[in-house]
Amino acid sequence: MSSINHIFKLDPNRPISEEQVNRLCLSGTDAIVVGGTLGVTYENTENLLRLIRKNSITTIQEISSLDAIVPGFDYYFIPLVLNAQDPTWILNAHHQALKKYGDLINWEQVLVEGYIVLNGDSSVAKLTKSLTDLSVEDVIAYARMVDQMLKLPILYLEFSGTYAEVELIEELKYAVDNTKIFYGGGIDSIDKAKEMSSYVDTVVVGNVIYENFELALETVNIQKNNVNHA
Amino acid sequence: MSSINHIFKLDPNRPISEEQVNRLCLSGTDAIVVGGTLGVTYENTENLLRLIRKNSITTIQEISSLDAIVPGFDYYFIPLVLNAQDPTWILNAHHQALKKYGDLINWEQVLVEGYIVLNGDSSVAKLTKSLTDLSVEDVIAYARMVDQMLKLPILYLEFSGTYAEVELIEELKYAVDNTKIFYGGGIDSIDKAKEMSSYVDTVVVGNVIYENFELALETVNIQKNNVNHA
Repeated sequence: MSSINHIFKLDPNRPISEEQVNRLCLSGTDAIVVGGTLGVTYENTENLLRLIRKNSITTIQEISSLDAIVPGFDYYFIPLVLNAQDPTWILNAHHQALKKYGDLINWEQVLVEGYIVLNGDSSVAKLTKSLTDLSVEDVIAYARMVDQMLKLPILYLEFSGTYAEVELIEELKYAVDNTKIFYGGGIDSIDKAKEMSSYVDTVVVGNVIYENFELALETVNIQKNNVNHA
Repeated sequence: MSSINHIFKLDPNRPISEEQVNRLCLSGTDAIVVGGTLGVTYENTENLLRLIRKNSITTIQEISSLDAIVPGFDYYFIPLVLNAQDPTWILNAHHQALKKYGDLINWEQVLVEGYIVLNGDSSVAKLTKSLTDLSVEDVIAYARMVDQMLKLPILYLEFSGTYAEVELIEELKYAVDNTKIFYGGGIDSIDKAKEMSSYVDTVVVGNVIYENFELALETVNIQKNNVNHA
């Protein structure tokens, strides 16, 4: 997977028009991730993939349900929720998936995300029973777990609709050597997208797609900074 | 770490004489692991390391308690108990350790073990609330989790004093590509040591050291098969 600085994340359980999907795909973003916490089914995921696939763009499914794994994506991201206190969301669900599909999986398409759920009010926090009352030291310890201990390819900071304190993200950046840092949460303007992308490898833009589509489209313009300084 | 086919595992909470430690170290085994489930302290671990250190042998601490991490071992193994249902033993304890020692750890000395607890009557199963009623398919799914999904260096099969069914271990061998398989449990004779070492990378000999020391010493002779066939 080549360098990915900007991602649009689409929730198969939320309505979006074919025209909007096409505009997102043609916007200059690096990839479209499909995933959500509630109401994700095989059918709505497949329907959304079919719309996206009419364009030429990297497609990724972020898997949250064993029953909604749809063939045909370029990559599959598997979240491992580090601060979940319900063992289902740490490794049990993965174990069930491996038991069902273990000999069919093409592991070159799969990336495991070390996931930190940081908004205690979010659906994902409630579902996974995540401990979200975390100090900076707690978050850095999780980052080291991903980067050094487990050596996972992706550290995913999930702020679910709220924008993080930039100081925290800046500290994290210096604690991590090899893992790519993905940030998702509250990016609803080009200014926030640019700010956050100076600290992380990849910004994930989700909610604003459904709230203010034109502002969402603007966030891809962070790339103008990154691609070519000439 | 070079090839390790045979390991003696010493429990710092069980009595052993200095002479016995010396004989284990000089036996031809590849390494001594220090670790246990109950009653492991900084003091008894350090005392045992001091005895072992009088010999020249690779020393490994298998960490089970944040308070008993002793500097001076060559390597540190960190168990990640895959089938634990108490989140403490999946990632919470590791998170606390990383919070406390994260910036001091030399990661080149550290190997994470994907641990499967397989004897439901053992102390470790009770402590970690492990799901031990596992089918062959369950165990293979965990093995794939270690080998393919998490890409951990070691898959540790912990049968805690009981000898496994060889058919299970043979099936596992074919499910795993890169991860080294360590086997511990019920190896109390050279015949069992030889049999199991034909399926796994490393046999770990523990309890029999305390039950029949001379039989324990004999188990190192598996190596004669592995080192040189000339």
